[in-house]
Amino acid sequence: MPLAVFSLDDDMPKLGKVFDDGVVDLSVAAPGLPKDVISFLRAGEPALAAYRAVGPDAVGRLPLSSVRLHPPVPAPEKYLAIGMNYSDHGAEARQLGLEVPPYQLWFNKQVSCIVGPYDDVVLPRVSEKLDYEAELAVVIGKACRYVTPEAAPSVIAGYMVANDVSARDWQLRTGTMTLGKSFDTHGPTGPWLTLAEEIADPHDLEIRMLVNGEVRQHGCTSQLIHNIWEQVSYLTQVMTLKPGDILATGTPSGVGVAKVPPVFLRPGDVMWVEIAGLGYIENRVVAEA
Amino acid sequence: MPLAVFSLDDDMPKLGKVFDDGVVDLSVAAPGLPKDVISFLRAGEPALAAYRAVGPDAVGRLPLSSVRLHPPVPAPEKYLAIGMNYSDHGAEARQLGLEVPPYQLWFNKQVSCIVGPYDDVVLPRVSEKLDYEAELAVVIGKACRYVTPEAAPSVIAGYMVANDVSARDWQLRTGTMTLGKSFDTHGPTGPWLTLAEEIADPHDLEIRMLVNGEVRQHGCTSQLIHNIWEQVSYLTQVMTLKPGDILATGTPSGVGVAKVPPVFLRPGDVMWVEIAGLGYIENRVVAEA
Repeated sequence: MPLAVFSLDDDMPKLGKVFDDGVVDLSVAAPGLPKDVISFLRAGEPALAAYRAVGPDAVGRLPLSSVRLHPPVPAPEKYLAIGMNYSDHGAEARQLGLEVPPYQLWFNKQVSCIVGPYDDVVLPRVSEKLDYEAELAVVIGKACRYVTPEAAPSVIAGYMVANDVSARDWQLRTGTMTLGKSFDTHGPTGPWLTLAEEIADPHDLEIRMLVNGEVRQHGCTSQLIHNIWEQVSYLTQVMTLKPGDILATGTPSGVGVAKVPPVFLRPGDVMWVEIAGLGYIENRVVAEA
Repeated sequence: MPLAVFSLDDDMPKLGKVFDDGVVDLSVAAPGLPKDVISFLRAGEPALAAYRAVGPDAVGRLPLSSVRLHPPVPAPEKYLAIGMNYSDHGAEARQLGLEVPPYQLWFNKQVSCIVGPYDDVVLPRVSEKLDYEAELAVVIGKACRYVTPEAAPSVIAGYMVANDVSARDWQLRTGTMTLGKSFDTHGPTGPWLTLAEEIADPHDLEIRMLVNGEVRQHGCTSQLIHNIWEQVSYLTQVMTLKPGDILATGTPSGVGVAKVPPVFLRPGDVMWVEIAGLGYIENRVVAEA
């Protein structure tokens, strides 16, 4: 069952194990476990074994509806994202004059943009082209370098739902993209971390984005051009990936900027991203104070 | 006097205050101070006042030659760098077919690439085009958003020397640059953090890069196209900058890739970057093990 970060009232966020409509407070049920997800991942197999042993009727169970869910990894060392990585999104990007490169196209979301699964997303007063991107996010579980595609599953801790919120006007100002991807609040993730061992095939997950209840994106991770194993392998030719690092794996077709005419987000719009088996995140767009 | 991070033998790195050929161990001379640079910056004016009060004859003084210097900020939340930001480097970039954009061109160095002022830089086995870039690095002192250029000096903690080591083949694969800028060990910084209050004018600092003793780059920060205040202002329209965040402010002309014919770094080459008033960093290129 998935690992959540939650709080009650104004408490410090704590780790919890989610069972249906409940969450078991791990600080009560397994007080020896580390207190945040990165420390938990660094602790490796012993922590995982203790986690697996916590059952649905453990002490410390709370109604899920009574807690606030936080981003599972609020402060990773790295938040990287790959562009134009669904076959159909590549086609709509070409239509906008963007070239689909022969290499994996990686950019950063600054980690300061990360927010929780139900937090507000701010429409910046300096942008008029706010857009959404439904994405499957990978969370790295072990420090690793030079990982082959075959070995990649062994370094992945699990998966989350992400929305790669994008200010298209800023994104298109330069080829590096990063500023348009990194406004504060533009990194909703969650609702929790689903452990890799609970996902039979991460390349066969249905993914959907709804805005105000209307389906805007609908794809499957089988459409990834560079699959997850290839992504991890390519990145680790360059850098050491570390526990908690987040990789956003691309978005299907249907983004607002590619519509004719383009449609951008307005205050009050509600974005809803669901991935089969991973849950959903729902974030309201608000005007900047 | 500058703030250094140093160790003796295999000790944990500690903060020190540098005086000429000595470094005062702040864990001895001012034991109430925070133990790392980010915590020190977060502590604000009281920590700075205690720091200023430490004199050259304080207890805990060690010969500078007896210690190892570490990167002043080994794990910032963000390491951002601006491209094509010296007038003369812009000209050589155009000659290579790179367009100088009308907007500030920001990319990331992944923070996992940071190493110290005298650490080795690895020539990756997957790159044949390793290059150097001498840069003035800004370290942010306060969490800030929407900073005007006029207010920017008030959020800057200080300055360091940086070498934006670049794998040009990887950098040019996509417009986002980040992978070519982020190989492990490709972020030498140091030798220490010189506080902003000790630099009369950061836009009037001579900067030089020597490779094996030969001058390759020689410029002055007066040549910045977007000056430091404009950089901070622009970035903080997008994101909250935080204590310890590093901004590399651009490099002068003279990079290896722009030479005719291009010249790239080889194992055994020694890169030496000096900025007037900030000291120097010196890093040897080594083959990958």
